[in-house]
Amino acid sequence: MAKFADIYYKIDPWKIIEEGFDEERNMVSESIFSIGNEYMGVRGYFEEGSTCEKLLGSYFNGVYEYSTDVNRSGYKGIIDHTHFMVNSVDWLYTRILIDGERLDLKVSQYEKFSRILDLKAGTLSREFIWDTKSGKRVKVKFLRFLNMNKSQEGFQRITFEPINFSGNIEVIMALDFSIIHESKGKCFWNVIKKEASDKRAAIIGQTLTSNQKVFSGFTFKSDSIIGKSVYEDEKTIGYNLNISLKQGEISSVDKLVSNIVLKDSSMDNEELWNTGINSVREQEGKNIDYALEESKAYWNNIWNRFDIQIEGDEKNQQGIRFCIFQMTQTYSGQNPTNNIGAKGLTGEAYNGHAFWDTETCCFPFYLFNNLKAAKNLLEFRYSKLGEAKKRAKMLDCAGACYPIATLNGEEACDLWQHASLQFQPSTGVAYAIWHYVHLSDDKEFLFNHGAEMLVEISRFLKTRGAWGGLNNKFGIYAVMGPDEFHMMVNNNSYTNYMAKKTFDYTLEVLAEMEEKSLDLYNKLRKKIGFTEEELKDIKNCSDNMNILYNEKTKIFEQHEGYFELPHIDVNSIPVEEFPLYNNWSYDRIYRSDMIKQADVLMFLFLYNQEFSLESKRANYEYYEPRTIHESSLSPSIHSILASELQKHEEAFKFFGFATRMDLDNYNRNTKEGIHTTSLAGAWLNIVYGFGGMRSDGKVLKFNPSIPKAWNSYSFRVVYKSAVLSVKACKEELTIKVLNDKSVEIEVYDEKYSIDSEGITLRIPEGWRA
Amino acid sequence: MAKFADIYYKIDPWKIIEEGFDEERNMVSESIFSIGNEYMGVRGYFEEGSTCEKLLGSYFNGVYEYSTDVNRSGYKGIIDHTHFMVNSVDWLYTRILIDGERLDLKVSQYEKFSRILDLKAGTLSREFIWDTKSGKRVKVKFLRFLNMNKSQEGFQRITFEPINFSGNIEVIMALDFSIIHESKGKCFWNVIKKEASDKRAAIIGQTLTSNQKVFSGFTFKSDSIIGKSVYEDEKTIGYNLNISLKQGEISSVDKLVSNIVLKDSSMDNEELWNTGINSVREQEGKNIDYALEESKAYWNNIWNRFDIQIEGDEKNQQGIRFCIFQMTQTYSGQNPTNNIGAKGLTGEAYNGHAFWDTETCCFPFYLFNNLKAAKNLLEFRYSKLGEAKKRAKMLDCAGACYPIATLNGEEACDLWQHASLQFQPSTGVAYAIWHYVHLSDDKEFLFNHGAEMLVEISRFLKTRGAWGGLNNKFGIYAVMGPDEFHMMVNNNSYTNYMAKKTFDYTLEVLAEMEEKSLDLYNKLRKKIGFTEEELKDIKNCSDNMNILYNEKTKIFEQHEGYFELPHIDVNSIPVEEFPLYNNWSYDRIYRSDMIKQADVLMFLFLYNQEFSLESKRANYEYYEPRTIHESSLSPSIHSILASELQKHEEAFKFFGFATRMDLDNYNRNTKEGIHTTSLAGAWLNIVYGFGGMRSDGKVLKFNPSIPKAWNSYSFRVVYKSAVLSVKACKEELTIKVLNDKSVEIEVYDEKYSIDSEGITLRIPEGWRA
Repeated sequence: MAKFADIYYKIDPWKIIEEGFDEERNMVSESIFSIGNEYMGVRGYFEEGSTCEKLLGSYFNGVYEYSTDVNRSGYKGIIDHTHFMVNSVDWLYTRILIDGERLDLKVSQYEKFSRILDLKAGTLSREFIWDTKSGKRVKVKFLRFLNMNKSQEGFQRITFEPINFSGNIEVIMALDFSIIHESKGKCFWNVIKKEASDKRAAIIGQTLTSNQKVFSGFTFKSDSIIGKSVYEDEKTIGYNLNISLKQGEISSVDKLVSNIVLKDSSMDNEELWNTGINSVREQEGKNIDYALEESKAYWNNIWNRFDIQIEGDEKNQQGIRFCIFQMTQTYSGQNPTNNIGAKGLTGEAYNGHAFWDTETCCFPFYLFNNLKAAKNLLEFRYSKLGEAKKRAKMLDCAGACYPIATLNGEEACDLWQHASLQFQPSTGVAYAIWHYVHLSDDKEFLFNHGAEMLVEISRFLKTRGAWGGLNNKFGIYAVMGPDEFHMMVNNNSYTNYMAKKTFDYTLEVLAEMEEKSLDLYNKLRKKIGFTEEELKDIKNCSDNMNILYNEKTKIFEQHEGYFELPHIDVNSIPVEEFPLYNNWSYDRIYRSDMIKQADVLMFLFLYNQEFSLESKRANYEYYEPRTIHESSLSPSIHSILASELQKHEEAFKFFGFATRMDLDNYNRNTKEGIHTTSLAGAWLNIVYGFGGMRSDGKVLKFNPSIPKAWNSYSFRVVYKSAVLSVKACKEELTIKVLNDKSVEIEVYDEKYSIDSEGITLRIPEGWRA
Repeated sequence: MAKFADIYYKIDPWKIIEEGFDEERNMVSESIFSIGNEYMGVRGYFEEGSTCEKLLGSYFNGVYEYSTDVNRSGYKGIIDHTHFMVNSVDWLYTRILIDGERLDLKVSQYEKFSRILDLKAGTLSREFIWDTKSGKRVKVKFLRFLNMNKSQEGFQRITFEPINFSGNIEVIMALDFSIIHESKGKCFWNVIKKEASDKRAAIIGQTLTSNQKVFSGFTFKSDSIIGKSVYEDEKTIGYNLNISLKQGEISSVDKLVSNIVLKDSSMDNEELWNTGINSVREQEGKNIDYALEESKAYWNNIWNRFDIQIEGDEKNQQGIRFCIFQMTQTYSGQNPTNNIGAKGLTGEAYNGHAFWDTETCCFPFYLFNNLKAAKNLLEFRYSKLGEAKKRAKMLDCAGACYPIATLNGEEACDLWQHASLQFQPSTGVAYAIWHYVHLSDDKEFLFNHGAEMLVEISRFLKTRGAWGGLNNKFGIYAVMGPDEFHMMVNNNSYTNYMAKKTFDYTLEVLAEMEEKSLDLYNKLRKKIGFTEEELKDIKNCSDNMNILYNEKTKIFEQHEGYFELPHIDVNSIPVEEFPLYNNWSYDRIYRSDMIKQADVLMFLFLYNQEFSLESKRANYEYYEPRTIHESSLSPSIHSILASELQKHEEAFKFFGFATRMDLDNYNRNTKEGIHTTSLAGAWLNIVYGFGGMRSDGKVLKFNPSIPKAWNSYSFRVVYKSAVLSVKACKEELTIKVLNDKSVEIEVYDEKYSIDSEGITLRIPEGWRA
């Protein structure tokens, strides 16, 4: 695996700083400088317009359009339409002119350019001095941020400081629905209504076929306006403002925006318009400076609770804060109709779809920081249970099959080999229910929503599986496990193991319900009609699940026949052949023992404490050398297991680019958007890897180690309401509770009761790097 | 397997007769009543036009159009365009009017309808009495046939016999390029030039993107024409003829057509036009009656050499002659740029593509009747070697990979799982080269063209295969064998066995060339640059080929892990779920031990004498019950092996609908075109099955058995220039040579030298049904 950093941004513990503008890196920077608040996200594009290569991405969580441009085969179970996150209104639309010359950083003369994402304030700012052709020099500053609490609101401030002149500047501020979806080459919005009154401009756009609507409106504030006219186009509305500048004095114009998303038809156009206009009216009474203080307060609270500190490694310090910042921007559990796209709200790539990464990779970040967010991710799946049942039926199965990629609950992956053969999403949901309840003890959720999902997932897995021809074993045939380099294999160990755990937990939950909450049990039984026979059958499948484990070597065979596959020395593959999907014949990827990403090692991570250290070592040492890590999550999972196996240098090597995957554009595709899963992976890597946290046992465990390069690091997790602080120095470990709670945990296999006094231990020999 | 005959046509030993017109069956009849001469083919549609459901199919062998309407994935090795046989000029275009009423059998009043395909004359005729709204009654007859020798020529005769009136009739005779390709809903022709002079009308059409051209011209003859005008439209040219009819007298009008196909750019438009016009001029000197006699003579010769006679079973008698007739119409080896489409020249289905069926199923029909045709099928593949090499490169392999479906040599199958994983076409070409040379001893072909193909195919198989991870065996991974219900399996026995045989034969041929024809050997080595090292490597791969054979049970495992697959009782699948592709979730088809068609049994058929009877029995008894025969060839292969195993009733059961697959529309899709492969399978089934012929050993062998229901049957094959006649009666077998030759053969494992005197044997006990 050869990945090289493309170091561009300035290192700073709390900021991402670009000094000077590199046009070649513009789209990467747009992704890096994205801001978001779960409800909406906007790439860090130049709002004043530019002729640079760019991606005008302004997105709303769960707003999508349908596409029939899929690989149609006509076969049953293969989807004939899909959906994708559609870019929406450019609510930052701005044009700036002096003496008829339009500001465009591709062609304009400028100097002292800088752009800063401030992780403490939640703001993106940019400034430079513009030298106009007419000889005027003016310092221009842009500031943008979102309301993290009232998430419909966004703010923009533009500041001008003329250096060598007094005179007028023309500023167009508008809302624009005409932007083209880059990869589909089309605008997917019709404008239903638009209006600019004296104080406010507003517009409603509607998608062409999914019929979702977005209201966008704004008001503006400035002391320097000397003239104003309406600026209008077919899908655009706003104002042309004439602003008077005085040499040496700072003038500004503020735009206060309200965006209201209507995903369904719960309001008619008039209601939506009125709701929107009222929301803009409220903005009229607000002040951007006050909003900015609110944003700072929000982020201050986040950092007080979630911050990870690394001493002695400024790059990773900056990197991990960028990860926590972007994760929080992407999803914070506001609304159970939202989920976490593979690129968050920062680009068109992966169509904004949520994958199984949500449950298996992002989920712990919320489990230990924001239980409501974790629960809402599960509620998202519960609300899509109907779609998952339809999908199972399409596949000739009972129960519920969760989609491999989705925004609205329907399967949206048009590669049938993934959509029809990968069941990680379904077992992932079951795993996340278990993980959530295990840590939260939220039986209300479990009995009301969780159990129903569990039964339906188990039904699906049971009907999708079958009994082997010779052995008396139950297994799942023709699947693709997490390792996507082996398609249509039989008895993939990950799939079978996760299915067995799903069966077991389903039966356990039903037994507990029957005992503790017979009403709900009976209600559920009435609703979805399971029988004793069916439950016995599930038990039988679990008891006889075909798990390809070799007692002697302690190695799980990834799937039937895996050990016999032709061997490829992955290190002998020339660097220029990566990514293999782009350079190898498609079928070639599937016919050797080469692995794309953690597969057996993935379930050894998820159910970590079910396996002996010896087995984990044997599997790690067998599979890692066969893995090319062509998935952004894979290195983190390997790093976590390497730490556990006390392979500390290897662990740090795999951690390598985890926190800076995007900042240093390791995959050279950050321009398409940020690797959200990778951000979550970096958090996992520190907390589960170096921190050695394990959350799958009865008590929370820690086996912290510290990378050689670091002086110390610390992180915080919320566990049973206690805010636990874990700090590892070179030789010493301190764990304490920051609030008024005490909890039982295990550290280096010893039990401790921790309170605000905390404990300080010497790090044992094997855990020092 | 539940298939039911839809008996409609009258039984007759030499004719296919429709009495009365069933509109519901119109499209089936169009397929059945197709005529062709390899160069062109035309469905039996009503040339006078009708508003019935219809498919106006007029096709030319190898004339295709490109399509970019494929499943695009962007992955390497997955095609991004395809091609399909395009319907071409309707050279039979006719309209008939009396008193302004247009003849249209959907709406017109008529009686005494009959349509007859005459297998002895090669003609399609149709007649009925038309009752016009104006009260006129006229007997109308249509006759059409093709020139079987000068294949550009087609003929049409329309005859009128007015019963209750004298008066005029208007007949439009034209050439029409405006017909729509049914499944694509589009006309793919531009007209470049058209002209109607006094005596002849002509037109050139050009396909939109493949730029192939077709000239069509005609002249007409009639004694009754009293008026004439040019009939013209954007893509149509011809005449409106006014014909005078006298009560009780027969009047006719003849159309003599010349169609000239230009597949490449070897002529410019003017040259093509002049060539075409000259060809029509030649037609002007001809007489349809004479052409008809020529056609009868051609077919007389065919039946003298190829006829199969069945006494005591009129249905199969008619059926097998229909098969021989249609096979001969589809392909007779005129031109090495032609091949055999899965539907011949009788419909749009399968896009006119040739499959591996050509070499493995159709090939023997020609090998024993028309060696030149067999050779030309191989020359077709030789001429497409460049395309096959390009395809191998797309798949990251060396050598040549022949396409799964093609007209022009390019891969045209846009289901990557078939196009990238099935290598039956390549091993099939190697097999056919061996089979052809084995029977013809044509070393000139072998050394000049065959050897080169063999080396390139071996190179492909060697680079596509790999050495197993644990065993020291060479195998081919991630393939789909002939049984298309198991995708991406490892070490499919068929593929590996056929690859081994390809390797062995390649080395054998090169050794023979080096010894006997060092010049050609060196020339070839210079041309394609193989080395001693490479040949050693091929030998090593063959010597260590992974063939999954169980010495104890004598059963070949279809592929790695097959025996362990979940079992399905194929007899328990409800009839209404067939065809499974239409009714089952796509992935469901792939996850049990259910087999679509002969796989292991296929290579036991192809290299029949390499295997013990015991092994053939064991494999037949293991695999047949798992097979649903969802391929039209599968029952015939099973019937042949059942005969060999003396399971005579079973053999006859599988033969069941072989000869009448289309006549009785068993698959209910004959309307899409005739199952050409099935026609060939019927011939194989009688000659290799009941006749027990085996052509893969040193001498030709026969083990004839006779179905209980038959009194006798006889067939003829040309072997080493001798026309062998084999006739089996209830208890007696007669074999003789019909021409002035003598040959060594084996009958019931005894050697005989056969000449025109022949031998007569009592059929041994086990071979009587």
